[in-house]
Amino acid sequence: MSSIGIFDSGVGGLTVAKEIILQLPNENIVYFGDTARVPYGIKSRQTVIRFSIENILFLLKQDVKLICVACNTASSFALPVIKNHFRAPIIGVITPGVREAVYATQNKRIGVIGTKGTIKSRTYETEIKQLDPKVKVTAAACPLFVPFVEEGWLKGEVVMSVARTYLKPLCAAGVDTVILGCTHYPLLKPVIQEVLGKNVILIDSAKQVAFEVKKILSSEDMLNRGKGGRHKYYVSDNPEWFSSLAQRFMGRKLTNVKKVDNV
Amino acid sequence: MSSIGIFDSGVGGLTVAKEIILQLPNENIVYFGDTARVPYGIKSRQTVIRFSIENILFLLKQDVKLICVACNTASSFALPVIKNHFRAPIIGVITPGVREAVYATQNKRIGVIGTKGTIKSRTYETEIKQLDPKVKVTAAACPLFVPFVEEGWLKGEVVMSVARTYLKPLCAAGVDTVILGCTHYPLLKPVIQEVLGKNVILIDSAKQVAFEVKKILSSEDMLNRGKGGRHKYYVSDNPEWFSSLAQRFMGRKLTNVKKVDNV
Repeated sequence: MSSIGIFDSGVGGLTVAKEIILQLPNENIVYFGDTARVPYGIKSRQTVIRFSIENILFLLKQDVKLICVACNTASSFALPVIKNHFRAPIIGVITPGVREAVYATQNKRIGVIGTKGTIKSRTYETEIKQLDPKVKVTAAACPLFVPFVEEGWLKGEVVMSVARTYLKPLCAAGVDTVILGCTHYPLLKPVIQEVLGKNVILIDSAKQVAFEVKKILSSEDMLNRGKGGRHKYYVSDNPEWFSSLAQRFMGRKLTNVKKVDNV
Repeated sequence: MSSIGIFDSGVGGLTVAKEIILQLPNENIVYFGDTARVPYGIKSRQTVIRFSIENILFLLKQDVKLICVACNTASSFALPVIKNHFRAPIIGVITPGVREAVYATQNKRIGVIGTKGTIKSRTYETEIKQLDPKVKVTAAACPLFVPFVEEGWLKGEVVMSVARTYLKPLCAAGVDTVILGCTHYPLLKPVIQEVLGKNVILIDSAKQVAFEVKKILSSEDMLNRGKGGRHKYYVSDNPEWFSSLAQRFMGRKLTNVKKVDNV
């Protein structure tokens, strides 16, 4: 049976994979993490588009019926360009998060945090304005958050201090809703929440992305009718490192991660 | 005229390029920074070897007479494998640093800091032991140092606190000499020196690498006899980002950085 294909620059997309598995337990999943070229957040638009196309071509060879771009940088830079080139539906992580944030905000002030690439692309801002032109968006790149998460610095004074620096413009703007525009950031939720204050709503798009995937497969009559999906994990480098980080992102170790030489 | 080829995963190797230019002002230089796939420090041995070979093939196409691997991770993982495959002499950054450290230590306790890859490879340890089996080596990976340098967090309580955590085993071991085993680390010298104490000697191999390059070109009668070398800079992504960081690593902006699509 055809699978749902998911790709990310590395491990972050596992937060999305986890939600898809939770909501669609009967679907087969093929996940690809481009760990040989990680991170994408500091790379240019042109390069992220090239990498994304290569990743999609790999997934298509695995017989996927739908592709989820589980990486905010790739969704920001590449999705607008690539989504019309392939026959399979391609879902990114931006639109579902935007929809939820615009729905959640009361004071029409939304904050967006992400990698340098995501923030530079202004994709979140554009999509929010399209949905509600009255919303004021304040965006901030948080480039040290990804290394902190990957190195396991999830709490303590160091990461709090960096978070206070990065989030200052959002606090100053009085946002009541903040989009965690990078799949690594949900792991820093307690820190981010403490800096922003407990009344600010944090939007983690993984759940919404999974809803979207379910909706499309359902409306196109493409849901798997069998029971118990199989999950395959591929990486372009370091399967052991990926497996060990999976614990942090999915709450469990992965034992069947395979290295492929496609990139 | 043939050039000296230098490659690194990104901008760090510019600290080495700067020294080579200083000591060999009449040599032409071709620098390649693999910014599309940076960083190398978290990638596997096998992948770093593949990337290094690709980088060398690119440099050879630019008519280089000698290659300098200005990246500790590539020198650790790839140099032992690749150095006999090519006709041009290939110089890494490990051996020159080791030589200086073994010469400098009084109490025969040397510390080594570097990326995860460099420390995992144990190349520094092996080379130090070969030169002086009595030396006790204490090694520590400092994975957040590279992002700190690239993001410009070069001082302050955050980076001091992280440095204190990373350098604790070196302090405990009572090392009197520490090899800065990553081309980014010289920019954190003040922080590292403060944590280790002012009597600890910090070895930055860039100068020694340049001596080595000069010695080999001289002994092989390959020095450029013309005046005023030309310097070319190529990257696989983000020439603007590279140019702006050059200020931090070389003390001046580079205006002639060219993006190439070879990787």
